[in-house]
Amino acid sequence: MIEDNHINKIIDSAVREVLRNKMTLKLAAALIEKVESEATRMGVSVAIAVSDASARPVAIHCMDGSYIGSFDIALNKTFTSAGFKMPTKKLGELSQPGGPLYGIQHTNNGKVVIFGGGEPLIVNGTIIGAIGVSGGTVEEDTALAVYGSSIIEGVLSWMKN
Amino acid sequence: MIEDNHINKIIDSAVREVLRNKMTLKLAAALIEKVESEATRMGVSVAIAVSDASARPVAIHCMDGSYIGSFDIALNKTFTSAGFKMPTKKLGELSQPGGPLYGIQHTNNGKVVIFGGGEPLIVNGTIIGAIGVSGGTVEEDTALAVYGSSIIEGVLSWMKN
Amino acid sequence: MIEDNHINKIIDSAVREVLRNKMTLKLAAALIEKVESEATRMGVSVAIAVSDASARPVAIHCMDGSYIGSFDIALNKTFTSAGFKMPTKKLGELSQPGGPLYGIQHTNNGKVVIFGGGEPLIVNGTIIGAIGVSGGTVEEDTALAVYGSSIIEGVLSWMKN
Amino acid sequence: MIEDNHINKIIDSAVREVLRNKMTLKLAAALIEKVESEATRMGVSVAIAVSDASARPVAIHCMDGSYIGSFDIALNKTFTSAGFKMPTKKLGELSQPGGPLYGIQHTNNGKVVIFGGGEPLIVNGTIIGAIGVSGGTVEEDTALAVYGSSIIEGVLSWMKN
Repeated sequence: MIEDNHINKIIDSAVREVLRNKMTLKLAAALIEKVESEATRMGVSVAIAVSDASARPVAIHCMDGSYIGSFDIALNKTFTSAGFKMPTKKLGELSQPGGPLYGIQHTNNGKVVIFGGGEPLIVNGTIIGAIGVSGGTVEEDTALAVYGSSIIEGVLSWMKN
Repeated sequence: MIEDNHINKIIDSAVREVLRNKMTLKLAAALIEKVESEATRMGVSVAIAVSDASARPVAIHCMDGSYIGSFDIALNKTFTSAGFKMPTKKLGELSQPGGPLYGIQHTNNGKVVIFGGGEPLIVNGTIIGAIGVSGGTVEEDTALAVYGSSIIEGVLSWMKN
Repeated sequence: MIEDNHINKIIDSAVREVLRNKMTLKLAAALIEKVESEATRMGVSVAIAVSDASARPVAIHCMDGSYIGSFDIALNKTFTSAGFKMPTKKLGELSQPGGPLYGIQHTNNGKVVIFGGGEPLIVNGTIIGAIGVSGGTVEEDTALAVYGSSIIEGVLSWMKN
Repeated sequence: MIEDNHINKIIDSAVREVLRNKMTLKLAAALIEKVESEATRMGVSVAIAVSDASARPVAIHCMDGSYIGSFDIALNKTFTSAGFKMPTKKLGELSQPGGPLYGIQHTNNGKVVIFGGGEPLIVNGTIIGAIGVSGGTVEEDTALAVYGSSIIEGVLSWMKN
């Protein structure tokens, strides 16, 4: 027989599980640290931002020597990827002259970035935030943001244990 | 012989008719509800905005799970369609590189949207407002805004009865 | 003996409960409708906005004849009350000349409102969003926002049944 | 006789010392971590920002549950303290109605904060950046920023060893 106490524990655990799959500062900082190491390995100085699912910033680090202009871009890449639930690279493809969303970069008070380097952060199929990287070539920024999004579930699992 | 009293009644009725064909919150909310049902039927989550003929917002609803970025875009689509008395899709055609209105998206403090999803709302040949939809593909947004503009007279008649 | 199936149901229910206590369009629209009725009863035309806990707008209604300027104010009152987790009236008291937060209205890109009419929306002790009302006297706006926050749990319960 | 080689070593060391006393991401992150621990000890959730001497942001962390509005304020407190080389509390005293700098909060595009929580970061008598804290009472924010500025030399020494 399962006791009430045991059930309560299971419920508590399930509820906590739901709540734990949210963006936290600890998760954002751990993710930024990993991406920073990768950028160092690549030999590039970047600004790295992480937002929650509501596109509210959680943490930003600007590596030594990164562009002053990259702070806004990294931040806005998180706004774009969390705000439209897609990589900024994909939005960039849709918004070329003649494309279906040409001109979207003028909406949202200048916070929409239409080139690579912003990626949604997805855990168990749900977007829990976004990462934005700026400071390298657009290929490097994209690679670093994709790297960040690819390791988010691993970082989260590692933090829970 | 036509009595004064009868003439007054006719005038009253005509004036009331003019006043009744204005955008109201009741009309905007009823229209939004219809478009929301259609979006649900299509399986897409969108933000739906309605403005009056002066491009002033009357009501906005953001469906659960719609893009955070869609609030501004839906709102700005109403500004664009009421402000230039045309569908945003048409303005988009005119503002491609090489087109006659190329660059118009840089005017009006970022409130001009040049892709589909904004439509004027016309009653008896007069623009009484605009509808803006954002959150699906541009084809879905356009279809929903066109749907809204196509039923406005029906919704108004139904409300009067 | 409690079967696994039963436990799963309990867990599902608990998780759903957590997820259900979030701001939704249905809840925002129902709340706005109630506040609108109260405003009508008071004989005042207002704009009423509801945001989620991240200060992202969910729904706004501008009553017929309400001030054009009230749209921004109602919206920004939700930003302020969700963004600082307090009534705008309270922030107003803290930001008078000589007060501890004097000058806060110049931060956050003009989105901080320091007079009454914005209230956090609290369910089971957690802020799930905010309501902003603008268009009457500041006393009327405050009364309407407080009214909205006072009925949110009732509206939510009623919607669940 | 002093050999050239020895002089070069002394110069090298002096130059390195100057270069080492600059704001770096490593220093900013270490400082933020210390202030975060202190905030946790005080039981308050805050946003903590560090800028360099040019008032350019280096790192920001928003603690879980901190105000959404605090991101901008913490950031702007660093702008203010690095930009005017003084604590925001002191600028606040100078900018009260009737004071010599009344109105300064309207300059600089809304980036001037005139209440406590921003402090210059000084190493060997030179400002190398600023710290901004937002989310507690103004007394708590000020205490945390002052704490950060008081430990900067210690943190730097510790990092060099």
